[in-house]
Amino acid sequence: MRDVYLLGVGMTKFGKYPEIPIEHLGRNAVFEAIKDANINPVEIESAYCGHAFQGSTAGQRVLVELGLTGFPITNLENACASGSTAFREAFYAVASGRNDISLAIGIENLSNKFKGALGPDETDLEAKMGLTMPALYAMRAKRYMYEFGLKKEHLASISVKNHKNALENDRAMFGAKITINEVLKSKMIADPLHKYDCNPVSDGASAALLVSKKVAKQVGGRPIKVLASALTSGKYEPGFINMTFEDITNRCALSAYKTAGVGPEDIDFAEVHDCFTIAEILRVEGIGFCNPGEMISWIEEGKTEINGYKPINPSGGLIGKGHPLGATGVAQMFEIARQLRNEAGDRQINNPRIGLAHCRGGAVAGTEGAACAVHILMKE
Amino acid sequence: MRDVYLLGVGMTKFGKYPEIPIEHLGRNAVFEAIKDANINPVEIESAYCGHAFQGSTAGQRVLVELGLTGFPITNLENACASGSTAFREAFYAVASGRNDISLAIGIENLSNKFKGALGPDETDLEAKMGLTMPALYAMRAKRYMYEFGLKKEHLASISVKNHKNALENDRAMFGAKITINEVLKSKMIADPLHKYDCNPVSDGASAALLVSKKVAKQVGGRPIKVLASALTSGKYEPGFINMTFEDITNRCALSAYKTAGVGPEDIDFAEVHDCFTIAEILRVEGIGFCNPGEMISWIEEGKTEINGYKPINPSGGLIGKGHPLGATGVAQMFEIARQLRNEAGDRQINNPRIGLAHCRGGAVAGTEGAACAVHILMKE
Repeated sequence: MRDVYLLGVGMTKFGKYPEIPIEHLGRNAVFEAIKDANINPVEIESAYCGHAFQGSTAGQRVLVELGLTGFPITNLENACASGSTAFREAFYAVASGRNDISLAIGIENLSNKFKGALGPDETDLEAKMGLTMPALYAMRAKRYMYEFGLKKEHLASISVKNHKNALENDRAMFGAKITINEVLKSKMIADPLHKYDCNPVSDGASAALLVSKKVAKQVGGRPIKVLASALTSGKYEPGFINMTFEDITNRCALSAYKTAGVGPEDIDFAEVHDCFTIAEILRVEGIGFCNPGEMISWIEEGKTEINGYKPINPSGGLIGKGHPLGATGVAQMFEIARQLRNEAGDRQINNPRIGLAHCRGGAVAGTEGAACAVHILMKE
Repeated sequence: MRDVYLLGVGMTKFGKYPEIPIEHLGRNAVFEAIKDANINPVEIESAYCGHAFQGSTAGQRVLVELGLTGFPITNLENACASGSTAFREAFYAVASGRNDISLAIGIENLSNKFKGALGPDETDLEAKMGLTMPALYAMRAKRYMYEFGLKKEHLASISVKNHKNALENDRAMFGAKITINEVLKSKMIADPLHKYDCNPVSDGASAALLVSKKVAKQVGGRPIKVLASALTSGKYEPGFINMTFEDITNRCALSAYKTAGVGPEDIDFAEVHDCFTIAEILRVEGIGFCNPGEMISWIEEGKTEINGYKPINPSGGLIGKGHPLGATGVAQMFEIARQLRNEAGDRQINNPRIGLAHCRGGAVAGTEGAACAVHILMKE
């Protein structure tokens, strides 16, 4: 396997764009990534497009807007981890030596396809009976409260942080200066989760250019090395599933650490899949930054703030930035690149060297989840 | 890149199964491939599932039926070439050295999702104005008739051959002993294409196990070497598109020949994407088996029959076997394995050594198509 570098990133501002075709959102993100990487777009050798609901051959429809076709284009789906999966395949296209420049795209327009929150799939009987995503995460939060003494105020603190981080991010949908009290007074969605504990329904697109060492050296710039790309699915466990510790996240992170040759102690910050505030807790513990239950004291001590010990979701995360499913995984790379290049403006972490991106997607009965991806990136 | 072997194949009989969940069709195909390969299923390290309309994380939903999860599972979409794309990614998972055993799955249940033929995508204005797939291929047939003197009887001969081949294939949906006259008397779909010139709407699933040389040697059996996996998309050509010669097919095939180190003269037979009878002509010429226009004499001389010079679609092809979009590309590998192992019964080609699979998918305005895949396989 060859070394792979993240050379360019692009993303639209996340938001609600029911009138804008996904092809145009995608085009804009790809165009920015090409400019950012400073490469000749005709040198792109393959493209991988992650999305969940954008119809057949969506990646091709995006790229033809730029006249960029004639090479292998592949569409990928892994629910909320679709973008991470596209990034991973583009990574391997370069790592395996078959391409020198590969493009990862993440796209999703939800607001012109769904009214309000996404409903459950019609084949998902558990969800149809009420076990929707907010309900599932509410149960996890309740169990975490029971086991470790978590309070609703802790959850609300995560919402306050992520909305605050998003306020400094010009690509974020939902930056806001809110208080713990405002979170607790926002509409109840599924006890103990209030509206501000949940990520908003969003539209948007993101893109990343992955290149070989040869190209990275030729172009110069500020390439970032991809140390590891891990993907897994939930194990088949028809009986007990641990509600407060994510085996799928943990296995995926351990695999990534092993490949990267680094441990959680070496990671300076992380973008994690905070679809709900409780999810941020489960993910930070799952990737081994701290022990189960320890996030309570971390929150109280501000350790996950931008100026804290381990900043989490400096971009605003899914809660603050928005969560256009397929776009999310690649947009995490946008933030990691910005931070590692010290280009993150008022949300800049103090000179970070290594960042981690974690994404989770999908519910499959009998398992803990459909997909989990962890990527580790380092500035050289 | 390491050598990759096709060790096991499975597929359901293609047909109409509106009552059978896609998870069950997929499970049955995977189970057969595992038995065929004679491997321990817990040794599978990754899976790639191709489909177009089966909903979120369909590959995971198939595999959990067998308790086979906990490793990377990725879903891929490239319209009618979705299965070939899944096969390609599984191929590269092994070729790149990251897995020793990878599973490709192709699935599609259309008859419980659509009534009759697939309608155009709602964003596809050209198709909504009448340029549906049958209309598009009818235009190509008309132009081919004008340029080369093709007759409707030539087209009908392809239908007769593919239905006849399917009659000997226990997995085919639509085996039939029909005459040229019966084809010409079947319902007109889009002049000059009659009903029997078109592939039927179908459901089904297919699976293939790809392994490293090490595993192939351990297991023994009759491994087949994958010499090349090529994928491309149509070039951006806003003006003229050649109606009688497929640049996308030709570029893809030339790329595969180059990688494989063989030429069209070395290929003993091919499964090609005969979504319509005229399509078989365009594909056989596109992959360079003969020159543009030459298929007319090939048909007259029976060169594409099972006992002919270059047998085409011995399985019955899409017209005779059926075409459950995502399942088609992987099902082509089922036929190639059966033929190269001399296991094809009454449709067996005389001791073939090298087979080629060609699949095309999707229409994207401004290009010749969304995806084209060509694979070349050889018995060792």
